[in-house]
Amino acid sequence: MKFKYTGIRVTDLKRSIEFYTKTMGLKQVQRGKMHAGGVYVQLKDKESQQELELNYYPLGTKFYEEYVEGSELDHLAFLCEDVRKSYKKLLAGGAISVIEPWDEGGWTLAFVRDPDGVWIELIGKKIKPASKRKNKKYPQLTVSDSSLKESFNVRDK
Amino acid sequence: MKFKYTGIRVTDLKRSIEFYTKTMGLKQVQRGKMHAGGVYVQLKDKESQQELELNYYPLGTKFYEEYVEGSELDHLAFLCEDVRKSYKKLLAGGAISVIEPWDEGGWTLAFVRDPDGVWIELIGKKIKPASKRKNKKYPQLTVSDSSLKESFNVRDK
Repeated sequence: MKFKYTGIRVTDLKRSIEFYTKTMGLKQVQRGKMHAGGVYVQLKDKESQQELELNYYPLGTKFYEEYVEGSELDHLAFLCEDVRKSYKKLLAGGAISVIEPWDEGGWTLAFVRDPDGVWIELIGKKIKPASKRKNKKYPQLTVSDSSLKESFNVRDK
Repeated sequence: MKFKYTGIRVTDLKRSIEFYTKTMGLKQVQRGKMHAGGVYVQLKDKESQQELELNYYPLGTKFYEEYVEGSELDHLAFLCEDVRKSYKKLLAGGAISVIEPWDEGGWTLAFVRDPDGVWIELIGKKIKPASKRKNKKYPQLTVSDSSLKESFNVRDK
């Protein structure tokens, strides 16, 4: 027995397929009809191999229900190279902001919601500002008093 | 950006770890505390590489809420060699039956619930009864009238 995928219920199949493929970068690998009348669309992340299924139950089919936001699906997590960049891209692609990017330890995190309200976590290694990276790489290039001071400030942080 | 895992909220962490490792066969790969006070336990299926995170928020922490059963997490799917066998094993291991195993096309399916009520789908190729497998493999061995009749019946199904 092996864990194959997580299936989430969606209320607008076309909207969710667009969101999870175009905005979140998953690939559609299969689609079919359940005998009970629902529709499933299997998505896969080609890099991580993680799978997500979208489940849609039209009004009048056996498993249709009024959509209730519950506790059981805490979040879907996406690992990002640059959380702040991904966050902006996702908002432009239809995600709703929940918590703006923040740093915690050596990580940057943010939360958005998918079109049905599902929380999506963005997490990635904290990116140091370019100036700090430069100082670290070439510490001997800062020779003036002011730049030396700046260099110390950076080290103090 | 890549899809890393699904996180589900659990109300009794120890119970859920036991259920998903001992009964469902996942391995615990990491565990930690969130700055906001919650606890996360990362699980992985060593065969399929699919990941599941358990999220536990103690009473009084930022993200604690009364557990509400909602629509968004439709189900977690597990691929089985023998659905009927896995179904029995899961019930013995604390799963609650929702839909008993049934055949649909060339597949066998069943649904159970995890300790918090999350639907778990068991799906696997339909296993043909031993007698039918034998008839298919050695059709010339059935020479008597009755066994010939039986052989036709099998083909009719």
